[in-house]
Amino acid sequence: METIQIISIVAAVVALIFAAFLASTVLKKDAGNEQIRFIGQAIQEGATAFLSREYRLLAIFVVVMTVILAVFIDFDILGKVGSGAGASVPGTAIAYLVGALGSGLAGFIGMSIAVRANTRTTVQAMQGLNPALRVAFNSGAVMGASVVGIALLGVTLMFIAFGDASIVAGFGFGASSIALFARVGGGIYTKAADVGADLVGKVEQGIPEDDPRNPATIADNVGDNVGDVAGMGADLFESYVGSIIATVALAAVGAGALSSGREELAVFPLLIASLGIAASIIGTFLVRTGEGADMGRLLWSLRTGIFSAGVLVLAGTVGAVLALGLDFNLFWVVAVGLVAGQIIGTASEYYTSYEYRHTKKLAEQAATGPATIIIGGLGLGMMSTVIPGVVVVVAMWGAFQLADLYGVALAAVGMLSTLGITLATDAYGPVADNAGGIAEQAGLAPEVRERTDALDSLGNTTAATGKGFAIGSAVLTALALMAAYSGVVGVQVFNIMDLHVMIGLIIGAIMPFVFSALTMQAVGRAAYAMVQEVRRQFREIEGLLEGTATADYARAVDISTRGAMKEMVLPGLIAIVVPIVVGAILGPEALGGLLIGSIATGFLFAIMMANAGGAWDNAKKYIEAGHLGGKGSDEHAAAVVGDTVGDPFKDTSGPALNILLKLMSIVALVFGPLFIG
Amino acid sequence: METIQIISIVAAVVALIFAAFLASTVLKKDAGNEQIRFIGQAIQEGATAFLSREYRLLAIFVVVMTVILAVFIDFDILGKVGSGAGASVPGTAIAYLVGALGSGLAGFIGMSIAVRANTRTTVQAMQGLNPALRVAFNSGAVMGASVVGIALLGVTLMFIAFGDASIVAGFGFGASSIALFARVGGGIYTKAADVGADLVGKVEQGIPEDDPRNPATIADNVGDNVGDVAGMGADLFESYVGSIIATVALAAVGAGALSSGREELAVFPLLIASLGIAASIIGTFLVRTGEGADMGRLLWSLRTGIFSAGVLVLAGTVGAVLALGLDFNLFWVVAVGLVAGQIIGTASEYYTSYEYRHTKKLAEQAATGPATIIIGGLGLGMMSTVIPGVVVVVAMWGAFQLADLYGVALAAVGMLSTLGITLATDAYGPVADNAGGIAEQAGLAPEVRERTDALDSLGNTTAATGKGFAIGSAVLTALALMAAYSGVVGVQVFNIMDLHVMIGLIIGAIMPFVFSALTMQAVGRAAYAMVQEVRRQFREIEGLLEGTATADYARAVDISTRGAMKEMVLPGLIAIVVPIVVGAILGPEALGGLLIGSIATGFLFAIMMANAGGAWDNAKKYIEAGHLGGKGSDEHAAAVVGDTVGDPFKDTSGPALNILLKLMSIVALVFGPLFIG
Repeated sequence: METIQIISIVAAVVALIFAAFLASTVLKKDAGNEQIRFIGQAIQEGATAFLSREYRLLAIFVVVMTVILAVFIDFDILGKVGSGAGASVPGTAIAYLVGALGSGLAGFIGMSIAVRANTRTTVQAMQGLNPALRVAFNSGAVMGASVVGIALLGVTLMFIAFGDASIVAGFGFGASSIALFARVGGGIYTKAADVGADLVGKVEQGIPEDDPRNPATIADNVGDNVGDVAGMGADLFESYVGSIIATVALAAVGAGALSSGREELAVFPLLIASLGIAASIIGTFLVRTGEGADMGRLLWSLRTGIFSAGVLVLAGTVGAVLALGLDFNLFWVVAVGLVAGQIIGTASEYYTSYEYRHTKKLAEQAATGPATIIIGGLGLGMMSTVIPGVVVVVAMWGAFQLADLYGVALAAVGMLSTLGITLATDAYGPVADNAGGIAEQAGLAPEVRERTDALDSLGNTTAATGKGFAIGSAVLTALALMAAYSGVVGVQVFNIMDLHVMIGLIIGAIMPFVFSALTMQAVGRAAYAMVQEVRRQFREIEGLLEGTATADYARAVDISTRGAMKEMVLPGLIAIVVPIVVGAILGPEALGGLLIGSIATGFLFAIMMANAGGAWDNAKKYIEAGHLGGKGSDEHAAAVVGDTVGDPFKDTSGPALNILLKLMSIVALVFGPLFIG
Repeated sequence: METIQIISIVAAVVALIFAAFLASTVLKKDAGNEQIRFIGQAIQEGATAFLSREYRLLAIFVVVMTVILAVFIDFDILGKVGSGAGASVPGTAIAYLVGALGSGLAGFIGMSIAVRANTRTTVQAMQGLNPALRVAFNSGAVMGASVVGIALLGVTLMFIAFGDASIVAGFGFGASSIALFARVGGGIYTKAADVGADLVGKVEQGIPEDDPRNPATIADNVGDNVGDVAGMGADLFESYVGSIIATVALAAVGAGALSSGREELAVFPLLIASLGIAASIIGTFLVRTGEGADMGRLLWSLRTGIFSAGVLVLAGTVGAVLALGLDFNLFWVVAVGLVAGQIIGTASEYYTSYEYRHTKKLAEQAATGPATIIIGGLGLGMMSTVIPGVVVVVAMWGAFQLADLYGVALAAVGMLSTLGITLATDAYGPVADNAGGIAEQAGLAPEVRERTDALDSLGNTTAATGKGFAIGSAVLTALALMAAYSGVVGVQVFNIMDLHVMIGLIIGAIMPFVFSALTMQAVGRAAYAMVQEVRRQFREIEGLLEGTATADYARAVDISTRGAMKEMVLPGLIAIVVPIVVGAILGPEALGGLLIGSIATGFLFAIMMANAGGAWDNAKKYIEAGHLGGKGSDEHAAAVVGDTVGDPFKDTSGPALNILLKLMSIVALVFGPLFIG
């Protein structure tokens, strides 16, 4: 079994070396002329300013939590934890700290490279489509490889150091803490800047998107990086780690259901993750395209990479299962997870891409004004919960039949095994988006913008798929963590007819509503502050609208940063405090009810918001592409309303729910022992 | 115990006599001049046309279902039901038929009087505010008294005839079937007409609301009656009946927890209902106001009636408990239910009335356009789930501590005990709304419209309270029915960690999303057909806009009717078929999971939609009252968008969820025995 731990350490290190190699190829590219560099510098500074302030705030939180974990869990001063009672080494606290640092580091690396790749993508777009795609995609791949490398390395080392999954759960909790702030804070930041920039720039002043005269432009660009790169990365880092830990924790359950032993099953997820890293690296090299490629061709080049990686993982799993003489059901479980992830992602694309009928029909509803397109989008979002919902149910059922609850957790590992490359296709989007913005601001030739637009439009599709995938994996991970929680607290029965469970369940169901309301209102407030600032600059800076004076970009960046910091505290605290309070007062059964209530509601709510938001966005793009009256028509104005409503839906509140579900589950897992008896 | 059954029959008959008395006082009033009569006639004909077509469609459904119940449940040809096997009398089928007829009759009576009271309210409004309030409120009281009278009479007779609560559940199922079609069909009808009328009339042609030139005006007026009177009545008829049946079914559980016997507990809910009828009748006489009363005074006059009735019920309960020597906990359970209902209703008012800060703040968000008011309204709706959610949790906890699951069911009976008067304040709203429309169409003096506007505005507040109350009682009823279901199928443990339960739970959570999507899309399609028709009439009927020709109102009524009929079939079937399929394939445990999943999600979703819709409506009214730019400003245009989105939220999809939750629970209760083993 130690061999497999060594293999996974090697795989993780290879991923990191690969990330370093890709990073160096990206950084070697030309960073452009002075104007491009100037814009790039401003984005870099804004992103760094946000990240450093976020991390400073987080540091306080992490230190406090580390102490709490050491005192109550490791040193067990309440004498509740039992097995770990009076440990000499604060294992959970250390694991927590390492998890937080690991996730923070991955986010830092991914964002650092993204804010440098954007200008370089712009420059490469002057040469052609393929070189631009390569730079943007490679920078996404740096994020992907860093996330899986650091996550697998960290989790393996923790298992070697502490052995016990309930201690290593601290690592997952650390990752979750960072994810919470990165996703929620990043989500608020990016949409405050985006909405603020659009409301004053496009609507009031009538200047185009990404126009350098708009003081919020740089903040908007920064937002793409802190929200969609760092936030998404931290989200999936957490899922990746959480699913592995849950699987290990359920190894004993698996051993009861399968013909393999507990020890093999405890390292099997590490092996799958290692195979996934190898497969993702190979897949990355398969992503390339020719000049003049259309949307379909571009998409296909990304899919080639993802599908190849999936096939390679499956082939590798067959080999591993046979070579190690493990139960062949394990292969099918991994396959179930991988396929389910792809279906959920594709379903999101089906509901949100204007290549398909739903979004086209939504665009047509703009003909009767903003109200009907809003109603239509909400309806579309609600309806789009069916496929993912059924897929999760079927996958859960299949995985359970194959390997009991261990199977449910392992299916999540399978789904996330090729994260190295799926995250690359996702993190690539904001880089392409930024590249287009930079081309616009630097006043480059129209064909450059056309090429970056092609890449950006592809990025929107992969973003939709990626969001579906992120939600699906979050749900499966949360369910797996809940199963692990059940083992830790020794409660096998959570009976709905038990009043405490039912009360927990209803409280759990309320959580996604409250969390979404808080994050949406946060965007509203932060965007309002941005609107005031942008208006002020247009009013007070003479010559700004005429282009003879420069906007005070830093001030706008600062406002978004402050807004995000202030607004992420309350939802963050709620997500941690509520499960602890429910567990402490109503007991471990009620906490189980809370988890399932929040997972069921939050899952569907997240899908609804992501898909409604994606469909509104693309309905607007469809009209802008010249359909139904085109840009400037009443239809377009109605579609812009839909898109603006969709912004916090798909980029703030929806994704924040992924974190809520996983975080509450891991809080339950870590603090569970305190609630027994 | 027979004494109490006799008391409840007497009380029910008194309620019906009272309804007849009130109806005659309403009908004795002057029906107005020729023009008013003409408009009133058109509304009457439209409403009758809708109801007769709806009932014809329903008749087919009811006949089919009666046969199914007789064959599979009563005659038990599958040999599954056990106790009732091979019964000589098809009890469940008969109870079902009586329940359906009873609910249908109550709806017919309520609507018949409402469409006659509207013109009479208009005429009385020429005299003053108080006479107009009396007519409108009395017509609402006819609906209230009819509903409680028919429901209590029916359910008591069924208990006398069949004794067994699981047979009488058929009565509840019959009421649910009617409620489904009345609420969903009525909801689609009313909003298709409303949205269609507004989009062409107000937006495209720039003519005022309720203008007689608008061909959809009459359909809009009809919609108020079929949706808000008949639909709401059927909804609460179902809750009222369902809560009583569930309580009786749980009498044995109560006897285990209390110092009273099973037989007493089985008739106790009938006694509470009887006390409620007496209290409601007395309360009705207390509703009156002076001329020139302001909003606060008007509201207070209604509240005086409701609060007095509540106090009387509590006093009566104390007396009854002491006189019969019952466990005093029963009194506290009834009190918990009554108070919880009032808090939930008041919370809805707090979130949706522009007297309070939330809706005022929402109106201010119109300053930055339609997108921000939509985001704000959705956030407000989500946040507003917290108070009702917590109140239900606390009420459930309290009732359970006092009397186990019997207490949860009895609390629902307590909440609904004063339904006779709460429904009156609710059904009064559409009558006042219609009266205003008629005054406008008949071109009466402005002070008439002012008076009806005051009544209408009051109606909006009571409608918000009423919606909150309807949802709260639906949830408590559904939970009680679920507890009864658990007893019928003999499953005491629904373990979330059991895969089947979890799968059922997720499917259940998906149901409200699908149901809401279907009903929202239905409104969209039906409204679109209406828009086409109204446009066609303006185009083809010469002189229509100039007022020299008359619109073809009947055609517009017909379109709304057809649309509603067509669109209500699919959601209706889903609500009945899905629980049966889940029960049959995945077993009774999974069905329990489905119920709780749908209750938790549907409850919160319904609150969110009702309150978001109510707040948007009132934010618009607040601006129209001259704030923030007033009518015709950009703020007003943005608020109109919010209101239009809110229409299907608050009047179609939200209320339809009440039915979904209760219907699925009662389907489970009736068909449950088939799924055992």
